[in-house]
Amino acid sequence: MTTEIIAIGNELLIGDVLDTNTHWLCRRVTGLGGVISRVTLIGDDREVIAGVLQDALAREARVIVTTGGLGPTADDLTLSAVARALGLPLVESERALQMVQTTYTQLAAAGLVAHDTLTEERRKMAILPAGALPLFNPVGAAPGVVMRHGASTIICLPGVPEEMKGIFETSLPTLLAELYGEAYYAERVAQLDCGDESMLAPIVDCLAIAHPSVYVKSRAKAYGPDVRLKVTLSARGPNQSQVDGWLDAALHDLCAGLRAAGISIISLL
Amino acid sequence: MTTEIIAIGNELLIGDVLDTNTHWLCRRVTGLGGVISRVTLIGDDREVIAGVLQDALAREARVIVTTGGLGPTADDLTLSAVARALGLPLVESERALQMVQTTYTQLAAAGLVAHDTLTEERRKMAILPAGALPLFNPVGAAPGVVMRHGASTIICLPGVPEEMKGIFETSLPTLLAELYGEAYYAERVAQLDCGDESMLAPIVDCLAIAHPSVYVKSRAKAYGPDVRLKVTLSARGPNQSQVDGWLDAALHDLCAGLRAAGISIISLL
Repeated sequence: MTTEIIAIGNELLIGDVLDTNTHWLCRRVTGLGGVISRVTLIGDDREVIAGVLQDALAREARVIVTTGGLGPTADDLTLSAVARALGLPLVESERALQMVQTTYTQLAAAGLVAHDTLTEERRKMAILPAGALPLFNPVGAAPGVVMRHGASTIICLPGVPEEMKGIFETSLPTLLAELYGEAYYAERVAQLDCGDESMLAPIVDCLAIAHPSVYVKSRAKAYGPDVRLKVTLSARGPNQSQVDGWLDAALHDLCAGLRAAGISIISLL
Repeated sequence: MTTEIIAIGNELLIGDVLDTNTHWLCRRVTGLGGVISRVTLIGDDREVIAGVLQDALAREARVIVTTGGLGPTADDLTLSAVARALGLPLVESERALQMVQTTYTQLAAAGLVAHDTLTEERRKMAILPAGALPLFNPVGAAPGVVMRHGASTIICLPGVPEEMKGIFETSLPTLLAELYGEAYYAERVAQLDCGDESMLAPIVDCLAIAHPSVYVKSRAKAYGPDVRLKVTLSARGPNQSQVDGWLDAALHDLCAGLRAAGISIISLL
């Protein structure tokens, strides 16, 4: 049930743009029962994009989400790279072209673009790998794309965060929840009055061994007088009651371990 | 001269933490004349970390920077994974142990930790792949690590942003500037009174062809009445005068292209 993200764009690698898309997708996919196993950030290079996609397919990722590179300019190469990686031709999709036309007609009517003619640059956004389905973009012009390849589902979203989220929320939650099955994910976060992670380490390590279904993580901020450590317990399972049972048992043992070490819990979420 | 980043931590993949380290490193490395070619985010899994590192070495990355997984808990696996990937034993470094001791003595004196004894968890932070050098951590306890492997330099930094930046600024700018040579990087950013990227696409495409030394990128935000497109011209070369010459020539042609299309520049950085 692993999911990989491929974030595409030279602007990410030169540090011009902070990639907030990946963080948003990680949260959203995890909440829908998926497991993000890897994220790769690469530049606008067709060969590199195609290679990373092939590597993800070779790892049998169930879902592969790309962000970026769907726009009208020549360096928007994602769909051409997907086609190359899968050995598919690029064809103009009638449905995608209708979506692009509808968007520009609305933008022109609102005076936001000069005209609604489908220029070559605008038509480019409707050229998809053969067999791919376009996904409606409620915010911008470039449709998203979804396609199957063997047991993998490949989803291509634009890099503009509002467009990425708009397409995701419009078309993907049901599809992904179905792919991920009935998985349920939950977590508990305890804030501690302790700034020394080395003191917490043996408690966390024992807890992880005693509760293999629960992922236990302590997090250090910088040292200092106002520093508080955080312990996160998280679990994924077939249903809520099982997951809550695991988490409550682990939390019980965490509290006992902390009490023995003289550490108290400040807050519990 | 390529540099790869490997950001390590389950908290990144479940979307608990936004990875700001990568963005900071991308900016900083680019400013020092390096080229970030790929970033990979993965979880706390020794085999996966070792595999990604081996892949980066196989791509002959000149510099590989890892973030995360250097702390005292059992799921801090980065150095053990590096040792496995390179076929090296893990050994306690006397210099690293002195650094860890100094930190805890200062923290204990300031009342921030209960005692300065080097417990097993604290000693763990001084166990490095054989031949690795520890890097002083001015903010926290875990030293950074630098080591050579063939033509590659591997740098391991903690995941806590303040510690990562503190080690980087203390020990790495000179080392990296030397590795990257005399490369100079600069950019020009033009903000336009145009919200339609498809109108800009032919201008950008022509510019990229006419100025192969300059990387030309237009960026779309969401469509709307207040939207402005941005065009970034960036270049890297042996010295400032050459790079500035390339950028000024490209900027001249960009202005001409925009004028012909009736698009004006709002601001230029």
